[in-house]
Amino acid sequence: MNIALDMMGGDYAPLEAVKGIIKCLPELPTDTILQLIGREDDISNLLAEHHLNGHRQLQVIHAPEVIGYNEHPVKALKEKKQSSIAVGFGLLAAGKTDAFASAGNTGAMLVGSMFALKTTEGVLRPTIGTIIPRENGKAGLLLDAGFNTDCKPENLNQFAIMGAAYSNIIWGIDNPRVGLLNVGEEEGKGNILAQAAYPLLKENTAINFIGNIEGRDVLEDKADVIVCDGFTGNIILKLLESLHPITKRQEIHHPYFDRFNFEQYGGIPVLGIEKPVIIAHGVSQAEAFSNIILSAVRIIETDFLNKLKGKF
Amino acid sequence: MNIALDMMGGDYAPLEAVKGIIKCLPELPTDTILQLIGREDDISNLLAEHHLNGHRQLQVIHAPEVIGYNEHPVKALKEKKQSSIAVGFGLLAAGKTDAFASAGNTGAMLVGSMFALKTTEGVLRPTIGTIIPRENGKAGLLLDAGFNTDCKPENLNQFAIMGAAYSNIIWGIDNPRVGLLNVGEEEGKGNILAQAAYPLLKENTAINFIGNIEGRDVLEDKADVIVCDGFTGNIILKLLESLHPITKRQEIHHPYFDRFNFEQYGGIPVLGIEKPVIIAHGVSQAEAFSNIILSAVRIIETDFLNKLKGKF
Repeated sequence: MNIALDMMGGDYAPLEAVKGIIKCLPELPTDTILQLIGREDDISNLLAEHHLNGHRQLQVIHAPEVIGYNEHPVKALKEKKQSSIAVGFGLLAAGKTDAFASAGNTGAMLVGSMFALKTTEGVLRPTIGTIIPRENGKAGLLLDAGFNTDCKPENLNQFAIMGAAYSNIIWGIDNPRVGLLNVGEEEGKGNILAQAAYPLLKENTAINFIGNIEGRDVLEDKADVIVCDGFTGNIILKLLESLHPITKRQEIHHPYFDRFNFEQYGGIPVLGIEKPVIIAHGVSQAEAFSNIILSAVRIIETDFLNKLKGKF
Repeated sequence: MNIALDMMGGDYAPLEAVKGIIKCLPELPTDTILQLIGREDDISNLLAEHHLNGHRQLQVIHAPEVIGYNEHPVKALKEKKQSSIAVGFGLLAAGKTDAFASAGNTGAMLVGSMFALKTTEGVLRPTIGTIIPRENGKAGLLLDAGFNTDCKPENLNQFAIMGAAYSNIIWGIDNPRVGLLNVGEEEGKGNILAQAAYPLLKENTAINFIGNIEGRDVLEDKADVIVCDGFTGNIILKLLESLHPITKRQEIHHPYFDRFNFEQYGGIPVLGIEKPVIIAHGVSQAEAFSNIILSAVRIIETDFLNKLKGKF
């Protein structure tokens, strides 16, 4: 399999990307080729420095342009056809790679996912999720984490199907419990969206719906998958992300709060599109780059996206 | 002035309510009468035990019924006319007390506020807020915290006016910075509600609008007042409330996380109604009861609700 990695995306790219490659190489299936997209000279020099030049699992693909963090996604993708992100989506769309991962401009990655690739048949809106670290060492999945700020009830129902499939197939959770983020426990509570989504989820026999999940239950191991609109999900994600720097500043050293360092996670793929696209945190370092590559491998090996087909 | 206190509301009532009274009595203006609503025998016995029987600032008002936590607010208020909450609103509506505070059924308190009292002229939807503890020792105000799960842009604009007035008049914050909770920094970001609320807030010369506030900024001292719909606000409030029990379980002892113990706060009044109603946490103990009484005093002394009039 081929996995394309944007070497120019992220605050610490390309150096940390190279370190991440070194970290994951021993675990990579021997038939996997990493396609490293970015400025050829920069990448080749770095690979040489790290004694990786000519490694049979590494292939450099030149992309002279870079999309910056503050660039407008649609405009940047249109104008910078030679950017690492545009080249990555080009490879994916042409079938020359099996997955594309980047820690670059999130908006450009989302726009690219929508324009360069088809959505899974029947999926109204693709989604992205986030890991929620739980006190008992487990991890929950909350989605949508910001892709769809306004949602319809059926979107939440589809997020539930995609999230449950991810939790089951990729994380190995048996019959994942799905909860609806809401302001109260009982059916009938909530805003118009949550009130209308509840019966859809309840009647959906393809998922194990356990009812409403309140804000106080997000960090509890109550539901494996929590669905909500992307506005609320994004606020939660960023609020939780802010806890780690706070604990560092306050000199609180505790393994649970260390798990709020979202930089370490590899990123969850865009769910509901035909091919694997993985969007990592802009501050990704070696471990995160290693994780996104290994995530891509797992998504391809489990044939995850094909298994999603037919569920809608 | 007269302040009515529901002696039957809250998990630790009436004992902790009595302890809270003992705690605040030395700070209470000498012309203040506390009207203690609940089962007369229970209250009188407890007052006697604590050598408070016949205290000239305490008056017991008999209310034989209690509205439980799980009762349906509208039904309970209608059927239990002799409950402490119904009696409290009766006193307030009849002008026999100047403020009413309770740690009882939140829904019943909100319903009572809407049905027994008039809203401030021009206010479309009254609101409740929550304190947000900040790392630098300050406190922010986030509203709506759950009263209005679906909002219109003009609601958020009015929450901003009420929140800024509260922050200024009650907390003494000069020209409070008002932020709009959103998924990005720039104008134009967000869901339909946030996109439409932004220009209203920007053009509102009565407030000091500083723009969008992301999830990561909620705990930062970036805005004194943060406005959002009550669905998002309620999720945030309950998520933050869950941090204190987590730190306790994990044996993390730190003054900042101690401030996430929301039980200690006295509660913020319902904003946008003609008279002061203060809703406290169900798990309120002595300190919280003391604080809600002193909050009521401050709201009356500053003539806060009258100052809100004419702003809409």
